[in-house]
Amino acid sequence: MSRTHHLSVNKGAARIVDHMKRCAAELGIAVSEGAAGETLIDCGAASPGGIESGRLLAEACLGGLGHVSVGPSAAFPRWPFGLTVRSSQPVVACLGSQYAGWQLASGEGEASYFAMGSGPARALAGLEHIFADIGYADRSDAAVLVLETGTAPPAELVRRVAQDCDVDPADLTILFAPTQSLAGTVQIVGRIVEVALHKAHTLHFDLARIREGVGTAPLPPPHPDFVTAMGRTNDAVIYGGEVVLYVSGPAADARALAEGLPSSTCADHGRPFAEIFRAYEGDFYKIDASLFSPAAVSVVALETGETFRGGRLEPALVDASFGA
Amino acid sequence: MSRTHHLSVNKGAARIVDHMKRCAAELGIAVSEGAAGETLIDCGAASPGGIESGRLLAEACLGGLGHVSVGPSAAFPRWPFGLTVRSSQPVVACLGSQYAGWQLASGEGEASYFAMGSGPARALAGLEHIFADIGYADRSDAAVLVLETGTAPPAELVRRVAQDCDVDPADLTILFAPTQSLAGTVQIVGRIVEVALHKAHTLHFDLARIREGVGTAPLPPPHPDFVTAMGRTNDAVIYGGEVVLYVSGPAADARALAEGLPSSTCADHGRPFAEIFRAYEGDFYKIDASLFSPAAVSVVALETGETFRGGRLEPALVDASFGA
Amino acid sequence: MSRTHHLSVNKGAARIVDHMKRCAAELGIAVSEGAAGETLIDCGAASPGGIESGRLLAEACLGGLGHVSVGPSAAFPRWPFGLTVRSSQPVVACLGSQYAGWQLASGEGEASYFAMGSGPARALAGLEHIFADIGYADRSDAAVLVLETGTAPPAELVRRVAQDCDVDPADLTILFAPTQSLAGTVQIVGRIVEVALHKAHTLHFDLARIREGVGTAPLPPPHPDFVTAMGRTNDAVIYGGEVVLYVSGPAADARALAEGLPSSTCADHGRPFAEIFRAYEGDFYKIDASLFSPAAVSVVALETGETFRGGRLEPALVDASFGA
Repeated sequence: MSRTHHLSVNKGAARIVDHMKRCAAELGIAVSEGAAGETLIDCGAASPGGIESGRLLAEACLGGLGHVSVGPSAAFPRWPFGLTVRSSQPVVACLGSQYAGWQLASGEGEASYFAMGSGPARALAGLEHIFADIGYADRSDAAVLVLETGTAPPAELVRRVAQDCDVDPADLTILFAPTQSLAGTVQIVGRIVEVALHKAHTLHFDLARIREGVGTAPLPPPHPDFVTAMGRTNDAVIYGGEVVLYVSGPAADARALAEGLPSSTCADHGRPFAEIFRAYEGDFYKIDASLFSPAAVSVVALETGETFRGGRLEPALVDASFGA
Repeated sequence: MSRTHHLSVNKGAARIVDHMKRCAAELGIAVSEGAAGETLIDCGAASPGGIESGRLLAEACLGGLGHVSVGPSAAFPRWPFGLTVRSSQPVVACLGSQYAGWQLASGEGEASYFAMGSGPARALAGLEHIFADIGYADRSDAAVLVLETGTAPPAELVRRVAQDCDVDPADLTILFAPTQSLAGTVQIVGRIVEVALHKAHTLHFDLARIREGVGTAPLPPPHPDFVTAMGRTNDAVIYGGEVVLYVSGPAADARALAEGLPSSTCADHGRPFAEIFRAYEGDFYKIDASLFSPAAVSVVALETGETFRGGRLEPALVDASFGA
Repeated sequence: MSRTHHLSVNKGAARIVDHMKRCAAELGIAVSEGAAGETLIDCGAASPGGIESGRLLAEACLGGLGHVSVGPSAAFPRWPFGLTVRSSQPVVACLGSQYAGWQLASGEGEASYFAMGSGPARALAGLEHIFADIGYADRSDAAVLVLETGTAPPAELVRRVAQDCDVDPADLTILFAPTQSLAGTVQIVGRIVEVALHKAHTLHFDLARIREGVGTAPLPPPHPDFVTAMGRTNDAVIYGGEVVLYVSGPAADARALAEGLPSSTCADHGRPFAEIFRAYEGDFYKIDASLFSPAAVSVVALETGETFRGGRLEPALVDASFGA
């Protein structure tokens, strides 16, 4: 993938972060210096944030290599607005940056802290196997990390992240918003293309063949309960999300990908995510990972011009999840 | 509302005005110096203007705190394009800036002039009660005023506006477009979220609780007759507009807001606006103000995650108004 | 058309080209120096390109006077994304720049080269009759040419183009993408408003009366075969495209334009374009030019506020063309 050598997801995100800092008041976000000297940008915890801060958070999380837009959505009449995400560098943007693959934990007992890390900083740390699989590593003097949480990380953990990224803590920016916030909602549903890429990886599809990804999903109402909020944002993707991937290589592989990608391939498909989560006693890792993918998928085989489809939108499940 | 202290709707609008000046030829607008030294930007009177100048006019009117986009709209097949407006600062953007609350009149008889003033300049003058209600005032050395008219205001009135805003006339920019123009059409339909906010205020909903507003409405064909043009732009909102508001506070209040907001709460609902206007002998102030609101409303109670709905789109009335 | 005197389509395109150069890696495009010293930008031949490079290619081709956006499209459920194009300077943008009216040929036999030239450079060369008809010529020290091809032009042809444009070859930028590429697909479907303008010209409608154009069409899957790819991109417009034009002048003329514009006025309407092309033995010039226009047209007569309609979307033909 030599064409991606010049891409820096951290530099791409830094341009978006600069804009967010300049417009902090308009965006309803708070920029502060953390205990380790890092820049903290609260997009929806103590600060109100909103849809635009979530949109920018999603674009930063994609390393500046994707476009996220908000507009009317005809697919679900009760939920009239949706997100659209697209990238011409979907592997680097989604798996090299946006995927929430970095488990950040520190402390014990009451002082313990845990958050899933996503965003460009992952590509500096390079601690996950996926970076070898996609053949991507970033080089940058500054790092941008995204956390789905309402609490800024402790100084000790920030210093460890900075060290893993080989940057000074002062050159690390951490953007965060809880699952329950509007910005968090947008940021998570903004993963509509990423979940397709990640499942394609799980299915051992050659990622270098994925040339372009475009996806759309309805914008769910936020919910103050963490599990319900997580349920709605996941259901927006699992039951309401639609993705088109453009792939090179044999059409038979594209067909198999279209058949294998949709969330309907998972045995748990058919129930709201929060219900599934509770059925597995709140243990995320017991849930079959094949559930995390769009409801409807089209795969265009560039080699033959054929379009293969799998899955379908499930409006009744979207309504049940979002609160009808 | 301490988080809005740093927001300047006039500075936000000035950035958009600068862009409009640079692109005047492309936008089909005319920039000139008025008799009192003010900058006049004609977006659709003697100049042709167009959809993009109207879009920018709407964003300037929102004080740079809202996003206005034009795209395909599936809700009304005969009217295939619509506007979408959103703001994470809806109270300041819509009521502190966009609302047409400043009645500007001068002269008598044949020399008389009247126009409704809207946009950021209102927040410098602070002459309306609503500014006390929303607790917002702007500070800026330059002012941007928007007028829904085909005629630039007389020098005497311009000087009075500048004085009220405490700026030099040379630091006052007046953007104007008549109701009948394409830019005027876009600018008025761009009030889809504002009318929801204004009616929420009338219903005594605590505005500080409105966190985000998103709305969409079809783009009507302009009409050369003032009353018909005013009718169509209002009907686009009253019968074709849909808004989602995200509010904090008790869910019961959110439910009451959703029930109270739609235009269907008005006894005059059900007839094209121009017909209602004529029935009241062309006296705007005799029309029940509760008519001026979106057709369909969703209110998301952030405290409980519930979505409450009121009203519904009225495609037949949109067709009747726009000319089928 | 004095208002267009200040418009430079080459300067407008140059701003977009600068952005494309800065973001070449992200866009998956290749910038190089050609044999005659010109700048070559490969958007989808040896370089992968993608939807965003095609979107920018389309905006450059419109001379920076149009907006092209990609979003969800409800009209064709099997083809969930579409393009929207709009311009407040539709005549200059579409006919003065975007129209592929410059036939560029050089050499003979195996060394022969042919490509249709489009974009701003045409308005410097001014070799086509249409420039007299629309009364537009550009002045610029730099030229931007768009070619629908997978092969960069030979040095001899580049020098001739530069000479015709009265610029140094070093000041000529050539953007190219083959019909079969994603960027090419977007760039061609991005002609949805242009085909309406061109057919209006053929129908002898007074172009100076066309004030604004807005159009949308589904994004077809690319196909590796040239004729099939050309078929799909044309069918996206002919059977899937919808345009609204805003015109001044008598309503009767607007009505006649709405009746005359749609592709359904052509006797060949009703079959996929590739089939028609093959029926005419691959001779483009034997196809009735009236086929090249949108499926559905609305013409708004600004003088009376009436909207006239012609044609209709043909989902079954879109499905048949795109591969169902």
